[in-house]
Order: sequence, then structure tokens, then C-alpha cells
Amino acid sequence: MTPGQRELRQARAYLSRVAESPAPALSELISGAGPVRAARLVAAGQVSHRVVAETGARRADDRAEADLSAVAALGGRLVIPEDDEWPAEAFTCFATPTAQADDRWRTPVALWVRGGGRLAELSDRAVAVVGARAATGYGEHVAAEFGYELAESGFAVVSGAAFGIDGAAHRGALAADGRTVAVQACGLDRPYPAGHHRLLDRIAEDGAVVSEYPPGVWPARHRFLVRNRLIAAFAAGTVVVEAGVRSGARRTATAAAALGRVVMAVPGPVTSALSVGCHLLVRDEQAVLVTRVAEVVEAVGRIGADLAPPLGTSRRHTDGLSPEVMAVYEALPARAPRHPEQLVRESGVPLARVRSALPLLELQGLVGCGVSGWHRVLPDNDL
Amino acid sequence: MTPGQRELRQARAYLSRVAESPAPALSELISGAGPVRAARLVAAGQVSHRVVAETGARRADDRAEADLSAVAALGGRLVIPEDDEWPAEAFTCFATPTAQADDRWRTPVALWVRGGGRLAELSDRAVAVVGARAATGYGEHVAAEFGYELAESGFAVVSGAAFGIDGAAHRGALAADGRTVAVQACGLDRPYPAGHHRLLDRIAEDGAVVSEYPPGVWPARHRFLVRNRLIAAFAAGTVVVEAGVRSGARRTATAAAALGRVVMAVPGPVTSALSVGCHLLVRDEQAVLVTRVAEVVEAVGRIGADLAPPLGTSRRHTDGLSPEVMAVYEALPARAPRHPEQLVRESGVPLARVRSALPLLELQGLVGCGVSGWHRVLPDNDL
Repeated sequence: MTPGQRELRQARAYLSRVAESPAPALSELISGAGPVRAARLVAAGQVSHRVVAETGARRADDRAEADLSAVAALGGRLVIPEDDEWPAEAFTCFATPTAQADDRWRTPVALWVRGGGRLAELSDRAVAVVGARAATGYGEHVAAEFGYELAESGFAVVSGAAFGIDGAAHRGALAADGRTVAVQACGLDRPYPAGHHRLLDRIAEDGAVVSEYPPGVWPARHRFLVRNRLIAAFAAGTVVVEAGVRSGARRTATAAAALGRVVMAVPGPVTSALSVGCHLLVRDEQAVLVTRVAEVVEAVGRIGADLAPPLGTSRRHTDGLSPEVMAVYEALPARAPRHPEQLVRESGVPLARVRSALPLLELQGLVGCGVSGWHRVLPDNDL
Repeated sequence: MTPGQRELRQARAYLSRVAESPAPALSELISGAGPVRAARLVAAGQVSHRVVAETGARRADDRAEADLSAVAALGGRLVIPEDDEWPAEAFTCFATPTAQADDRWRTPVALWVRGGGRLAELSDRAVAVVGARAATGYGEHVAAEFGYELAESGFAVVSGAAFGIDGAAHRGALAADGRTVAVQACGLDRPYPAGHHRLLDRIAEDGAVVSEYPPGVWPARHRFLVRNRLIAAFAAGTVVVEAGVRSGARRTATAAAALGRVVMAVPGPVTSALSVGCHLLVRDEQAVLVTRVAEVVEAVGRIGADLAPPLGTSRRHTDGLSPEVMAVYEALPARAPRHPEQLVRESGVPLARVRSALPLLELQGLVGCGVSGWHRVLPDNDL
């Protein structure tokens, strides 16, 4: 690391703690003055009232060195926009006019990261799978399946490491030896939820555990809301597997939509309170209904490259028959032979055309002709 | 009945058997010449080639008198367009340019009916509920619930009397002492399926069992396709509860859409093959996703009169707080009191504004102040 790089990292480590994200005025200052100068100005209090409002409470508290050491001790690192692995392309979604018009949608100052994966690479082909903590068996099953198949299809699975849907999605990806990304709403030294401590370690092996919060910060609710935008931004699309009427997952979906990402929802039984949020997303046209990973891949994939194979391509044996020929076929009982004359009344088709329809049906392998008349060949078991 | 009325009914009874529906050329002839003259021309064979093609096979077979007697013996009647109870308004859907451009969408020549309900009245406020025969327990539960609640909301429940979803929908309506309509694909003397013989009798009590086929006609597959258009036309909207990839229910939905009716689909588990058809209808934008009867009523109801009450109108107790006030609230631990000075670092909010935020939170009933500092009032159990 050159002295310049070290200075940049120190400055961003300091700025990452000094303001609570989102801090739009500070973001502006950093864009204008650069991180090193911005850090000096903030520390000296030589900034606008807006920046003071965002940084005044903590500006005297420079713990950059200690924070960098603490994260290094966890095997982690601070990833900054000046690094090659910064997910710059994913974060262009924060630069759109829509995002810029809303103070909530700001690029993080830096990201605290633990894991073997490089962020830019992980976010290049990533899908978020999110949902309720108090998920049903159905929801966890679907989340795990989606996680598994997305990983198999070469996608990194992004989620929030919560109990329920999040955990199942991460585990599904890991089961496929795939890569998965957990975005946390707290410092990396406070794995959250604690019960997912080992899961987070496994995620970090080939994937990444990511947070914009420095060590020691605990997961307060407002941080989850802020965190959700990173989950949405990091992935090309967000799949909501189960969600109640009011839920964090629905808010992640809203964030994803605001950031121009594809939002998808998995339906479930209408009798389940945990599918209500998903159904509302579809009814409100905020999400596309998806039922399998091929549909997810199609929605987030490049147009034409990842089209889902249509269902039900197997043709029924009577497909393509004209209504009249079909009527003749239908007039033939399942188990008894008939002469053409006998088929006229039942089919409502004149004799001459009954006579021409029968050989046509024979060509299709649907009827045969014996001594006692014409008979059906295939049993008709799907009336 | 006047002699003129009797003659009309006889003519339509004859025409109802002489051609297999849909018979677009015969329909045209009847519109032009009137039913009595059309019947005479058809019987004499003095008609165009197109009408001959539709009627030639059966034209010599005038069983009008016998058919009318047979249906009367069942306690039924022939309802013709000249009758007051003819569902003329419902059938205007067959007169649209779209319907007229397609030979499949034709008004029936007459309807054979058994039941205490008058057709025009039943169709005035009706919803069709259709779906798979081999339904799941979930599907039958939903169909029965929808049937019940639609009946309670004053709608007639229209379906096809099949096993599975159809039967459950009819039964749900009957359980609510509501009225329900079964449209059959065969003569009324052949209740189909036979196992629903008693159900059909109950449907006929206050509702109606309806068919465009004269007595003796058996239910061939092509008649189900033709019948499905009547189910769709009879109701303001069609709800598909469960349907496989290829199913009659999906075809009824297609018919309903072609006739300008509202098509709705009930989602289900993505792991269920019987919900695939419903999900495809939503994905292909052929159907609106519905999860409860209020949404069905809203979709088919008059605009503004039947809006579904929104879900989740109960507000969360921290709704409406500014991000800064929220940050102060979040900085307060769930079980321990804090002084304003202690909240500055955690919240990232300057002391002066922490001091002004706390009384605001107190006004909302969210925090209180004691000797050892400020504390939360409501437990926060939905992080």
C-alpha cells in the first residue's frame, strides 16, 4: 500500500464512523473535496451547517487506526471506492437522478468487508433473496431452493443473514458450493443475529460479509432500513420470498425499485399471512411474480440470453385438429367401434366429411379401423 | 303461452339440436330470418352451403316436442332470447367486434334450464369460480371460502359442477344460502359428473343448472370448450382457483378475457403443480392476482362502489418520526434508561437536538423520563 492509499483508507475509515449513513451533505463534501481533505475539514469543524449537523456529534472521535486494526484482526478489510474491487458498476444506481433526488439513496463512504470474495466480482452477477424472519417451512424451502439454483446458475446470492428466509437463501447457495453475500446492519465484530455466527463465517469463506458500519456499532432498526438499500443495490434484482403486510422485505423491495432494480415476489397460499406482502407487491405492480429460478434469471438476465424455457411444451395428442375433425374424434366412444354413418348424428358432421376425417385421425395415430368399424387408439384420460 | 310463443320455443328447440354449437352461419340466419323461419328453411334444406354444413347431418331429426317434454319432466324449461329471463345483458359480450370476429363466440340459440332462479337476475351480479378437477385440499378450501363469501356478498357463483374446485365453489355458495349456477356440457337428463347428481339438484333449488345441449347429449370434450364460454359470459368476472399448465380452467380464463370479462387468478405454493396455471395467467398479464373476495368484488364491481379495504392500515407506533428523531429513539436501549448526553454518540445526533427530540417522543407516548434518565415506554418487538 502506498502512503497515499493508506491516507485515503484512514480518511474513509474516519468518515465512515463520523456520520450516520445516509449523510447526503457529507457525501457531497467528499465528492467535491476528496476523502482526505473532507476528513480534515470535518475534524476541524470547518464545514457547512449541513455537514456539521451530520458529523458534529462524533467528529472529535477519530478511531480510524483502531477500527482498521480491529477489522484486520477479524480477517477483514476496509474496501473503499478507490479500490479495484469496489462494486462501482453496481453502485451507479445511486447516481441516477431519481436516487439523487432522495437523500436516502447515497453511496456508502466505504465498506467493511470480511471474506474471500472480491466485491466487484460478486456483484457482477448477483441476485438478492430476502424475506420474513418468522418464515414458514414453505418459505424456507423455496428460499433454499432459489439460493441453491441461483448459485448453480453462477449468481452470487445476496441477503441479510437474518433468521428465516435470509438464512435459508444463504444456506442454499452454500449447499451448491456457490458464493453468497451477507450485508449486515452492524459492525463486523458483532455478527448478527448471534445464532448465525457460524453461518456468517461460512459465508465469508468464498463470499463476503459486508457492512458500512465500523466495529462496535450495534444493529438498531434504522440501520436495517439503511442497510436494505445496499442489499438492493448490490444485486441486479431482488426476490421477496415471504413477507407480511408490513415488513423489512417489502421495504427492501421498495428500495430496489427506487434504485431501478428488478423486483420479484414469490407467491404462496392466500391462507398464509406471510405471503400477503408478496401478493401485495404483485397486485400493486411493484414486483413481477416468479415461481422458479429460470424466471428470475430471465428477469435479471440480458435480454435474449437468459429466457426461461416455457412450461407445458409437451403437446396434447389431439392438438392441431380442426374443430370438425375433433368433433368426429370425440363422437367415437372410448371403448366401442363405430361405422362412419353412426358418427354423423353425434358429431354433427356430414357423412362425406366424417369419411375424410377418419383417415386423417388414423394418420395422427388417434384412431384405427377394424372389421367392426373405427375405434380410438389412445385412451382419453384427460377430458 | 300464446301460440306465437309456443312456435318460437318449438323453433328454437329444433335449432338447438340441429346444429352443434358454435354454429356461426346458423346464428346469422336466425338473426336475419328469425327463429321460426330459420327453422323452416333449415328443415327444408333451403339454406346456404355454410348453414347446410352446420345442420345437414341432423336437419331431418325434429325432436323439439319430445325434447321440450323431456325437460319439462325434469322440472326444467327452455329459455329463449324472446323470454324476459334471457340474460340479454350478460350476452351483449357476444356482440362486440372482437367476439364477432371469432366464430367461437356466439350467443346460444337457447338454454335448457332447471332451477328456481331466473337467468337474467342470476347473471346480473355473478362471479365465476373455476379450476382443476384434481384439486388440492388448499384449492378446495379457497374455492369453498370464495363461494361462501361471494354468495354472502350477494353474488351468484357460476361454475361447471366438476369435481374439485367447481364443486367446492358451488358448495360454498350453498353453505351461505346463496345462489349458484352450474353450466353443463351435456343434456340436463345426464347430470355430469354423475357423482354430483345430488349437488346439481341442490344447485337447481334456488339457482340454475344450465345447458345449451338438448336432452340426451353426452359430454364430449369439445363441448366443455364450448360450454366454458357460457360460464365466462354469464359472470362479470372469472376467478381461477387452481389450474395446471394445460387445463380447462385456463381456457375458460382465455374465453373470459376474449369476451371482455375480468379474469382473476388465486396464487398458491410455487411447489404445487396445480397453481402453475394460475401463476402463468398472472405472469402473462392475462389475470389479476386475487387473494380474497374483497379484491374480487373490487375487480368486478362498479368503480368506487366496491373498493377493497386496504390491508395493514394499522400504523406502527414510530410511523411519521423524522429520521433524526427516530435515530434518538433507536439509540435508547430497550430496558435501560439513558441521559441525553449518553445518546449523542450512538444516535449521531448533536446534544441540542437530542434534547428536543426526547420530549417529542414523549408526546407520542414512546419514551418516558424518570430519575435515572429517559427510557422507552413500548417494548420494541418488531425490529
